[in-house]
Amino acid sequence: MSTVILEPWDHETFVAQLRAVGMTRYHHLHPFHQAMNRGALSPEQIRAWIVNRFYYQQHIPMKDAAILANCPLPEVRRLWLHRISDHDGEHEDEGGIAAWLKLAEASGLSREEVLSGRHVLPGVRFAVEAYVTFARQQPWPLAVASSLTELFSPDLMSERLAAFERYYTWISPEGLTYFRARLQQAPRDAAQALELTVRYCTTRQLQEGAVQALAFKCDVLWSMLDALQFAYGPLPGEPAQTAASTSAPTPAPQEGRL
Amino acid sequence: MSTVILEPWDHETFVAQLRAVGMTRYHHLHPFHQAMNRGALSPEQIRAWIVNRFYYQQHIPMKDAAILANCPLPEVRRLWLHRISDHDGEHEDEGGIAAWLKLAEASGLSREEVLSGRHVLPGVRFAVEAYVTFARQQPWPLAVASSLTELFSPDLMSERLAAFERYYTWISPEGLTYFRARLQQAPRDAAQALELTVRYCTTRQLQEGAVQALAFKCDVLWSMLDALQFAYGPLPGEPAQTAASTSAPTPAPQEGRL
Repeated sequence: MSTVILEPWDHETFVAQLRAVGMTRYHHLHPFHQAMNRGALSPEQIRAWIVNRFYYQQHIPMKDAAILANCPLPEVRRLWLHRISDHDGEHEDEGGIAAWLKLAEASGLSREEVLSGRHVLPGVRFAVEAYVTFARQQPWPLAVASSLTELFSPDLMSERLAAFERYYTWISPEGLTYFRARLQQAPRDAAQALELTVRYCTTRQLQEGAVQALAFKCDVLWSMLDALQFAYGPLPGEPAQTAASTSAPTPAPQEGRL
Repeated sequence: MSTVILEPWDHETFVAQLRAVGMTRYHHLHPFHQAMNRGALSPEQIRAWIVNRFYYQQHIPMKDAAILANCPLPEVRRLWLHRISDHDGEHEDEGGIAAWLKLAEASGLSREEVLSGRHVLPGVRFAVEAYVTFARQQPWPLAVASSLTELFSPDLMSERLAAFERYYTWISPEGLTYFRARLQQAPRDAAQALELTVRYCTTRQLQEGAVQALAFKCDVLWSMLDALQFAYGPLPGEPAQTAASTSAPTPAPQEGRL
């Protein structure tokens, strides 16, 4: 049996492959996000998204720490470390997690019900845990590549911010601090992650692994929205039977509606 | 079958149990350390210790990141995070790893041979990797408890600093920056780790786990010195057959002697 060792892609081809994943699989294409951005979600649906997405936010520092825990290079760890304090803050009530809690409170959720995790859907839980497990178990350059959804998030984030300011005015503007901060942070983080991905994924196998890692991460974000759409759909303007990608009936609402 | 649920130890008993481990199992009692502190090691033995201990230093940020990666509490992660930048530094040539490299260079080792890892003994490698694996796989409060050897290190460190200044004067004083920095950092870190251990190990099972975790960590440090003593012994003033804890002959020196 012969093994064909493929040449590494050149820089442009590699980056184009990564960008192509985002164009086709990033969750800006998901019906739930599209309904959100055209102002079509009810307050209950918005709250459901906020409280479920909080579970994702909560786990980001653990994901980033898992990357550090697998990375033997101080020069890479020094670049990556700020992500943890960006999210956790230097003090209580600072950082991304605290900002997301403020969004939740501005939407009418209590801090207690958000932190309790009782509204977190199983599909969201599984997706988030798959992401943390990926960072724990995969080579760190692939876990870095899985973060590259940040390349695509500024566009989504500015569209989302405009939608919240226009359609969801029942959420006070101070609640939107998280989105504003990420508009600044995400491009810087994405540039850093892209540079590390290109620098350390130097074989074709690692490059293909990076593309797959990014596709996996898109699946994580996408399936979180699937879970939301199943539980809180149908979306306005869409008949129940097309609200999700299968013809299964929308499940009964959970206890403790939002 | 009945299960006896034991009452948790009170604060004083728990702390006394932890301290008792250090009194009996910390590596200040190891013959290699004792020989170091009475000025009895040759330059080659000192260099062997420095280059092998570097492998341990290199892995400390990965161990600390593994604790963060398993810890769901932002308030704990905020307390623990500085350990990573203490070691990695904010910039190149800062932090504990860089300071240890300076010690190595001051002892006559080249930066290249230290970073290459080629002098690292198998027993040292296994011990260090066991420590990182412990932090990755065990509940985070137990991994925190395993750091409590810091409770005992300031005494050893000041004794070591005095020994280096008195006996190993062929190492320039600037090489000893790491030891001086740790004299400040270790008591603060130890107090923090002890407080977290007491706060989060609230069942008898977790308390006993913490005591075992600290004993395990003492074993890590101890077996690193066993490996050094086997490879670079016998120690001055000790006949070859008592230089190690078994009667096996001292193995042949490695290639690339120090």
